[in-house]
Amino acid sequence: MEKEKKVIASFEAGIKLGALFHQFIGAPVSEKNAEILEKAIESCVKLQPYVVSAEVRIDREKLKGFSAFGYTSLSPEMIRARVVVEFEGERVEAVLEWDEKLRYPLMKLL
Amino acid sequence: MEKEKKVIASFEAGIKLGALFHQFIGAPVSEKNAEILEKAIESCVKLQPYVVSAEVRIDREKLKGFSAFGYTSLSPEMIRARVVVEFEGERVEAVLEWDEKLRYPLMKLL
Amino acid sequence: MEKEKKVIASFEAGIKLGALFHQFIGAPVSEKNAEILEKAIESCVKLQPYVVSAEVRIDREKLKGFSAFGYTSLSPEMIRARVVVEFEGERVEAVLEWDEKLRYPLMKLL
Amino acid sequence: MEKEKKVIASFEAGIKLGALFHQFIGAPVSEKNAEILEKAIESCVKLQPYVVSAEVRIDREKLKGFSAFGYTSLSPEMIRARVVVEFEGERVEAVLEWDEKLRYPLMKLL
Repeated sequence: MEKEKKVIASFEAGIKLGALFHQFIGAPVSEKNAEILEKAIESCVKLQPYVVSAEVRIDREKLKGFSAFGYTSLSPEMIRARVVVEFEGERVEAVLEWDEKLRYPLMKLL
Repeated sequence: MEKEKKVIASFEAGIKLGALFHQFIGAPVSEKNAEILEKAIESCVKLQPYVVSAEVRIDREKLKGFSAFGYTSLSPEMIRARVVVEFEGERVEAVLEWDEKLRYPLMKLL
Repeated sequence: MEKEKKVIASFEAGIKLGALFHQFIGAPVSEKNAEILEKAIESCVKLQPYVVSAEVRIDREKLKGFSAFGYTSLSPEMIRARVVVEFEGERVEAVLEWDEKLRYPLMKLL
Repeated sequence: MEKEKKVIASFEAGIKLGALFHQFIGAPVSEKNAEILEKAIESCVKLQPYVVSAEVRIDREKLKGFSAFGYTSLSPEMIRARVVVEFEGERVEAVLEWDEKLRYPLMKLL
């Protein structure tokens, strides 16, 4: 029973990370708007069912010295997110973070 | 132990549904390209880790008589998806389907 | 010569409206985060080349009484945008607005 | 008069390139599904108003040896597109192509 809740909470956490990645990858970003973009993405995740908290961080180092036009597209290498989801009292925490070794935006349950 | 695998498989299934929804909502669609769009979305999901199978269906009825330009944007009401994910022998099946009563593109584990 | 600049400015204005529509349609939205989402979208447009100003407005009326979960996905009916682009002294203004008669998110030069 | 048509055709061409870039960047891609993804993107562009033809090409070289999971996310470096738009007899051709020197997915009128 308790396990079933954890299964559902984990499914819901997966939805949130898959959603935020695919909604926002490609958005124009620079040091100028990184903070408001982070806040907007967090605000979107927080609207979704069962979300307790959401944190999104765009790596400022990876925004430096980019294109000739002074900004770039939000890319998988740049984004880190952490979401806490609770389903009927069962909480799970999940993160999205670029894994340099795998060359992959890895999503995992903590 | 077995439960842990199911938790992870469910997390992965959630990622896939959240991803496909937010990647493709908004794409131009009509009866002309609905099938190739379905196949392309399925092909994207099948590349992702642990996916055994993926089916995507765009509701042809909801494509009829739309805008003056003969097509519309892929919207939450139109898309149905089913994904089977397997993690270390544990399989889960999840679906995305518009719920008319909730007015919501509901994702759930079967 | 002057005409050529207007042609380029118009091309650039088209890019901006096509980009913002397809980047952000589908994002979770409610009255709670509509303002921050508007500001974030504007901030993205303003980073792009030749943009002088950008305004984005999400129709609050269309956010009311939506899904059972208290939010919806940003849809073509909800979004209005206005962008001013200048290329080598030639300015153009373009808007995106839902046209109820055409059932279409119409983009046009003013 | 003739110029005005070219201005509108150019605006429409810009919309198409901005749209396709921001709709599809982030989609899962590998050598396995690159062709169907190209065809699906082309099918989307061809539905849009005034489009005469559309070609999309995903750079297979840039898909090689990517992540540990055998695929990657469609990124600005990988995609090339060419669209021909005609408005009241006036045709324009526009392309999207990664510019390595500018480190930018440059869109331009030919």
